[in-house]
Amino acid sequence: MHDLAERRLAIEGIDPEIDGGRFPAKTVAGTSFVVEADVFGEGHDVIDAALLWRRKGDEAWTETPLEFLENDRWRGEIIFPDIGDHQFTVIAWRDLFGGWARDVRKKIAASQKVSLEITEASHMVADAAANPRDPDGASALESLSSFLQGEGDEERKLALLLSDETAALMKASAPRNSLTRYERVLDVIVEREKAVFGAWYEMFPRSQAFDVDRHGTFNDVIDRLPYVRDLGFDILYFTPIHPIGKTNRKGRNNTLTPSEDDPGSPYAIGSAEGGHDAIHPELGTIEDFDRLVKEAADHGLEIALDFAIQCSPDHPWIKEHPEWFDWRPDGTIKFAENPPKKYEDIVNVHFYRDSIPGLWYALRDVFLYWIDHGVKIFRVDNPHTKPFPFWEWVFAEIRAKHPDVIFLSEAFTRPKVMKRLAKVGFTQSYTYYTWRNLKWELEQYLTELTQEECRHYMRPNFFTNTPDINPVFLQQSGRPGFRTRLIMAATLAGSYGIYNGYEVCDAAPMPGKEEYLDSEKYEIRNWDFDQPFHIKDDIRLINRLRAEHPALRDFTSLRFHNAWDDNVLYYSKGDPKSGSYLLFHVNLDPHNAHEFDFEVPLWEFGIPDDGSIEVQDLVNGNTFAWYGKHHRLALDPHSRPYAIWRLLGPVTQA
Amino acid sequence: MHDLAERRLAIEGIDPEIDGGRFPAKTVAGTSFVVEADVFGEGHDVIDAALLWRRKGDEAWTETPLEFLENDRWRGEIIFPDIGDHQFTVIAWRDLFGGWARDVRKKIAASQKVSLEITEASHMVADAAANPRDPDGASALESLSSFLQGEGDEERKLALLLSDETAALMKASAPRNSLTRYERVLDVIVEREKAVFGAWYEMFPRSQAFDVDRHGTFNDVIDRLPYVRDLGFDILYFTPIHPIGKTNRKGRNNTLTPSEDDPGSPYAIGSAEGGHDAIHPELGTIEDFDRLVKEAADHGLEIALDFAIQCSPDHPWIKEHPEWFDWRPDGTIKFAENPPKKYEDIVNVHFYRDSIPGLWYALRDVFLYWIDHGVKIFRVDNPHTKPFPFWEWVFAEIRAKHPDVIFLSEAFTRPKVMKRLAKVGFTQSYTYYTWRNLKWELEQYLTELTQEECRHYMRPNFFTNTPDINPVFLQQSGRPGFRTRLIMAATLAGSYGIYNGYEVCDAAPMPGKEEYLDSEKYEIRNWDFDQPFHIKDDIRLINRLRAEHPALRDFTSLRFHNAWDDNVLYYSKGDPKSGSYLLFHVNLDPHNAHEFDFEVPLWEFGIPDDGSIEVQDLVNGNTFAWYGKHHRLALDPHSRPYAIWRLLGPVTQA
Repeated sequence: MHDLAERRLAIEGIDPEIDGGRFPAKTVAGTSFVVEADVFGEGHDVIDAALLWRRKGDEAWTETPLEFLENDRWRGEIIFPDIGDHQFTVIAWRDLFGGWARDVRKKIAASQKVSLEITEASHMVADAAANPRDPDGASALESLSSFLQGEGDEERKLALLLSDETAALMKASAPRNSLTRYERVLDVIVEREKAVFGAWYEMFPRSQAFDVDRHGTFNDVIDRLPYVRDLGFDILYFTPIHPIGKTNRKGRNNTLTPSEDDPGSPYAIGSAEGGHDAIHPELGTIEDFDRLVKEAADHGLEIALDFAIQCSPDHPWIKEHPEWFDWRPDGTIKFAENPPKKYEDIVNVHFYRDSIPGLWYALRDVFLYWIDHGVKIFRVDNPHTKPFPFWEWVFAEIRAKHPDVIFLSEAFTRPKVMKRLAKVGFTQSYTYYTWRNLKWELEQYLTELTQEECRHYMRPNFFTNTPDINPVFLQQSGRPGFRTRLIMAATLAGSYGIYNGYEVCDAAPMPGKEEYLDSEKYEIRNWDFDQPFHIKDDIRLINRLRAEHPALRDFTSLRFHNAWDDNVLYYSKGDPKSGSYLLFHVNLDPHNAHEFDFEVPLWEFGIPDDGSIEVQDLVNGNTFAWYGKHHRLALDPHSRPYAIWRLLGPVTQA
Repeated sequence: MHDLAERRLAIEGIDPEIDGGRFPAKTVAGTSFVVEADVFGEGHDVIDAALLWRRKGDEAWTETPLEFLENDRWRGEIIFPDIGDHQFTVIAWRDLFGGWARDVRKKIAASQKVSLEITEASHMVADAAANPRDPDGASALESLSSFLQGEGDEERKLALLLSDETAALMKASAPRNSLTRYERVLDVIVEREKAVFGAWYEMFPRSQAFDVDRHGTFNDVIDRLPYVRDLGFDILYFTPIHPIGKTNRKGRNNTLTPSEDDPGSPYAIGSAEGGHDAIHPELGTIEDFDRLVKEAADHGLEIALDFAIQCSPDHPWIKEHPEWFDWRPDGTIKFAENPPKKYEDIVNVHFYRDSIPGLWYALRDVFLYWIDHGVKIFRVDNPHTKPFPFWEWVFAEIRAKHPDVIFLSEAFTRPKVMKRLAKVGFTQSYTYYTWRNLKWELEQYLTELTQEECRHYMRPNFFTNTPDINPVFLQQSGRPGFRTRLIMAATLAGSYGIYNGYEVCDAAPMPGKEEYLDSEKYEIRNWDFDQPFHIKDDIRLINRLRAEHPALRDFTSLRFHNAWDDNVLYYSKGDPKSGSYLLFHVNLDPHNAHEFDFEVPLWEFGIPDDGSIEVQDLVNGNTFAWYGKHHRLALDPHSRPYAIWRLLGPVTQA
């Protein structure tokens, strides 16, 4: 009875609350973390509510108010100052003095006598004075109380009791009646901005010598840093840099008949020269790597490493820890397979049986090793084929010491599996973006990613392409498609990336497949990034706009608008606090021009449909005005496949 | 690490799970309780899953299978045999042998050698034989295992391993790998059918003498039982039967100037003659009441009592337990009020301070007193003005001994408050039905009630009218509106009720108000239920159809269909197990005839759009056929305001 009675008020429908509090929500330090809750009591009492939050492990809570919205819904905002694991919950209480004031005002309006009510309020004030919640209010409460107990006239007492000052004093210092705390304490992972907002550039370090006959080194990569930075990227991501196995090595174009000098796939990790904490000797030494990380930082770039757990048959772990692998009845090791396909250059660890805890610690220590060498961003290969509990455990271990580390989930699998990986702790996630090309499917998918519950824990990273994904659309679109897919990747999600070659519209496929011909996974490529018809100007533009316009930093502010053409995607991003508000028109058809009507969201600025708004064309820099809500635009894929506008607000009369 | 590792598979998205398991779902014994869950593991393993359920407090679980639907969603059904508090949860495991068989079939299809796979499977069988999950399978496993270990030829071993018999044996008896149990055990309240399906008739016992000068008695009520039963009702519900206070008694039509012989409102409970466990002397004695309960049962009727906590100023509790009431600074008791309105014939108890535990026990004991006298159904007056924790506590107390007791929540307040009352344990709830008259608002509201999450815990009871609600629609509709609102109440929800007078279309209002003129709350009425233009035939018809057609028993099977007229509500209810499927057309316009096209849901029977279906008109009994999907119907409010059809299935050629 007493346990139940203690929670007199109803607190429910908390948002965000992931799976009944089983998983944390995520946010970014210094940004607005909005919480909503249904809060109400029985009857007609005046109630009030607040959020409590703290760093996980701390005792004390910080309080921040909840404001009433409508229909018993309340909303508040926490701005977590620091990264790391935090918690929040909701409290609510009956504001008896507030209820008294509300009722007395009604009685006065109905000309009822309120002498007894004044005495009742005096008792409330006396109670508060006797036991003030905020000691700062004690003396004011005492002097108010003694005035109310005194012989003064009723009218003055009533005026004082109904004054704003008394309301504020009682709110701050009166006991909270029926103080109820929500049953659960909810976790929040607070991260740095790159968790949700970064521009990635992916390369194979071994191709950075620009000579198919010479294996690139970390020193060659250092020479490439100005190029990557000039394009405006934040994160330079390497495919695996570890020793590559010899046994069953794959040849060019994923063949089973390599020549002697084929370099093999860097995803076949491990050889006599070492495993996941070693560097492929031809790339350089750990000292070279350390210097590269430092030089990258000097260029404003962070290095992201690939974390691929699979091993080549030559990985040292196989001899050191045979219990981490599967063995067949004939004593051979079990290769990776997806029957009837066999992957004989790869063996998978298993995570249970005798692998707990040894393998789990070993994998954690691989992360820690590279973290010690300055790497704070990992792209994790195929996480959906490893047990969820392993990820949940290892991320908690890493975050406890290094809350600034970012993990990108490279899972292209079923929707609920992708979401579960995000729930267990991946910072951000690859998506289905490369396979969403039509207006309706982009709108539907983006609405899910940016508006539904998953936005609280899954942050999309829109890669335009990867070494494994040469999208059919790009194979057929030519340069206009590369431009529009870039602009959409960079502005629909918070994080995005390209795999090198995209800037020169490389899309030569393995015939009939969504793979690249002469895939860099199996050979060293000599890229020509200065060939004609590159799209580096688009990349520089969009990365500059991303840096300059706060609206692009929060992927959840995406909204779609009306453009009456099925080939034109039309959307906005807005940041109310800074007033940054951008509009985008993208012609999804890479072959034909489309002219269409569209609606300017004047209502976002409180401007009537026949009002005017100042607007800047962010592609060419012009500033002008749009008069009225309806406008017409033509987008030609060859000259102007997209338009980007900044809305500045109502036109001010000069 | 180990705690996390133990839950290898993901089990999430359980439906029903109310507020993360904070509140129980509800169901009815002997019916289908459907559970869905997302269940999946990493990678491509074959997995399997099941529901576990038990009576709360029991140790052992019963298992029932989950079947895979699509997109990692699984569904299962529990049919709880008994009423009472139950629990369920979800388990899942990796079916290694099933995965082996799937992969081996693919390899065979690709002409790969599978000798090692046969050995691997033999090891699985040997492991199962050594430690069979189901001891019944032990000997079969042993003989299978020894055959597989023997010298027999590979082809025979493979055939045996891939046989249905081996699959079934291994499914039943092999160890379950990575057996994972969902984090939470979820509660389910299992009730009897009247919890969701009953027809209520409300009366004032004191009016049952049919003489305004004589106070009706329980014996008079006994004489009325055949009438109520003849109309087809299941539940006979009385307004309060307790002694009525004298102090500040209300006069006729809620006036403050009663005459000496005004009987007062039965909701002003308590006088010198007793309180909530006493009977108003003019109604009879407790022995009379006991006899009434028994006679009602003999007529197939259950008695429902009103449970109204408020007290008249003369209630014995005020002297016995002054600490349960609020007192003003001048020593007077605080009357009920909703400023500036005052209700001086009523005082409210308060539930906290010194009322815990005394008042809580006392109120529980009031329930128990009437339960001891055979009452198992209570309509609770204004529950939304009493603390939620009290209800949660008292229902748990009652249910522990009397799981067959039903509580109807009479809350007409904000949506979330109404839902919270259902969550804390009310069996069924009054609704906004009386204020939903248009097609779009009926469809919207009913879709919420029958399809959204609240269907798991809030069961609607559609009263057409109450002593407090004389709906404006009925004041203006005349008899056609009474007929259609009856039919909809009885078929849209599971439970429904009328307050007497409805059968003779009584709707004389207090001018400009939604209240009855000469309200029975303040005076004894002499009803004439045989006056012309009554609607007793409609009542008998619909109550008979409710009894005969299983489709009407589950309110969640409601679906709306296309009838191209905004004045026509068109819906179905279906019970797939019995094949019972009814269609309803209701003309919402009580003044004008409407002729309209509608669509017959042939697809529900697998009949093509140009096929034919046998249909019975349940109003006049004709059976005939509808050919094709589109039909036309006219509903005239004065002759045929509604139509009810039973779909029998494809026309069979004679």
